[in-house]
Amino acid sequence: MAQAAAQAAQSTRTTQATIGDSEFDRDTAVTLREEGVYDAELSAGWTIIRAVNGGYLLALLGRALGDALPHPDPFSVSAHYLTASVPGPAVIRTQVVRAGRGLSTGSASLFQFADDGTEVERIRVLATYGDLDALTDEVRTSAEPPAMPPREHCLGPADGPAPIPGSSAITERLDIRLDPATVGWAVGAPSGKGEMRGWFGLADGRDADPLSLLLTVDALPPTSFELGLKGWTPTVELTAHIRCRPAPGPLRVSITTRNLAGGFLEEDAEVWDSTDRLVAQSRQLAKASRG
Amino acid sequence: MAQAAAQAAQSTRTTQATIGDSEFDRDTAVTLREEGVYDAELSAGWTIIRAVNGGYLLALLGRALGDALPHPDPFSVSAHYLTASVPGPAVIRTQVVRAGRGLSTGSASLFQFADDGTEVERIRVLATYGDLDALTDEVRTSAEPPAMPPREHCLGPADGPAPIPGSSAITERLDIRLDPATVGWAVGAPSGKGEMRGWFGLADGRDADPLSLLLTVDALPPTSFELGLKGWTPTVELTAHIRCRPAPGPLRVSITTRNLAGGFLEEDAEVWDSTDRLVAQSRQLAKASRG
Repeated sequence: MAQAAAQAAQSTRTTQATIGDSEFDRDTAVTLREEGVYDAELSAGWTIIRAVNGGYLLALLGRALGDALPHPDPFSVSAHYLTASVPGPAVIRTQVVRAGRGLSTGSASLFQFADDGTEVERIRVLATYGDLDALTDEVRTSAEPPAMPPREHCLGPADGPAPIPGSSAITERLDIRLDPATVGWAVGAPSGKGEMRGWFGLADGRDADPLSLLLTVDALPPTSFELGLKGWTPTVELTAHIRCRPAPGPLRVSITTRNLAGGFLEEDAEVWDSTDRLVAQSRQLAKASRG
Repeated sequence: MAQAAAQAAQSTRTTQATIGDSEFDRDTAVTLREEGVYDAELSAGWTIIRAVNGGYLLALLGRALGDALPHPDPFSVSAHYLTASVPGPAVIRTQVVRAGRGLSTGSASLFQFADDGTEVERIRVLATYGDLDALTDEVRTSAEPPAMPPREHCLGPADGPAPIPGSSAITERLDIRLDPATVGWAVGAPSGKGEMRGWFGLADGRDADPLSLLLTVDALPPTSFELGLKGWTPTVELTAHIRCRPAPGPLRVSITTRNLAGGFLEEDAEVWDSTDRLVAQSRQLAKASRG
């Protein structure tokens, strides 16, 4: 299985991957076992050190809910993270809470298995789905895309001191270029501001869709690095709003933290597409490390 | 019952109400029926026109979860609103999702009853609780309280054209004074900015606590009024983070909308206490009216 995945990954790097035929799509696939219940395999390809990335898990749950609910697209997904997920088999149990005309709401839980076979819940999600293609094109907004240098002047893993630390499998699957103004932490000089900005793409060239945006909102290094904290910041809760189907092309992601207090911090992410539309907003509450 | 409530309300206006002995506490009381199941009575005192206020409902569910979970305080509460609640009896069904050492997570649903007696789900909540008093005092933050005039220069219901429209019972229970810079909509001259700011208190003088903050985050007029929309904006989903136990005294609330698009908007609320601590943050996704 791992070998097949590696071969698939290699082949997708030679020809551009597409929505529906890419590593991300294969690794977030779910198989209907019985009504509302899906089997999944958490891929080791989306781990940071040993932990499975929270945004990848969100996309996996989002795919199951998109199948279980009458509407196709996640409008608002609220996830509460319970225990750390590990690569390997998982089962997702969904429940349709309400099926309305324009919106529907569902709940989903991802379980893995203890040594004695009992199910351990990893993450619980409550989500409202709709149809992004049914929305009007009207935009009345005060939000501007983040000011940052063009992609070629931003920094990826190959540029000097590893901006994304650890030997993490996920870095091979993402194409992230960070704004130099927010990578001071990588050379021991954090800015002290709770800001992280960068360009985001999937390494195999697959364009963004609403499901991959659920990955994007939790893919950059944490703002806490620029606030001078060194350890990871486990997510307690993350809510993402998908506001528009993203246009093809690279995304810009801006993350800000206004309040690091009492050992917790919030991280607000905005994701912009190549046509300057604000396509996703998210906020998470995370636990600050003691670093 | 209604008469007793009115008498109680009157008595609390002559002497200052306290946390635990106030109209808000009585109207958010829940009665344990069996393990995890609570009876409640949605009070007509917290309605806007005919709809029961979403923040009041959140506080009611928050109280039930505080009883059902091993930790006392809401840290993160995600609510998905399903159908409109009406004054009258309700039942809240809770589930403990995970009970951890520092945090616990639970789910809660509020149901009312159709004419034939069947239960209709109004709102579903997923929440993580902890103990605010166990947090460190460390604050490392870039956030500043909103700039607005002192309370005596802000506008309440008695000042000129009703800043809070309709004959709504909730206006008698809240003491809201809006920043004059964000009430242009009340005189037909909305600013066009997605901003709403004001001072917030409970009319009977009860001080704020984590539960009443769940009311506070959804109590001001919607930012859409200042964006030139006239109708109400029903909440699809609201997530609130309670970051600190609020100090006694009036609260300042700032609400901003960056993205009104495709018939939906987000509203981000920040709540500050009298010691300039950011005590609550919330974000909701709401449906824009066609006004």
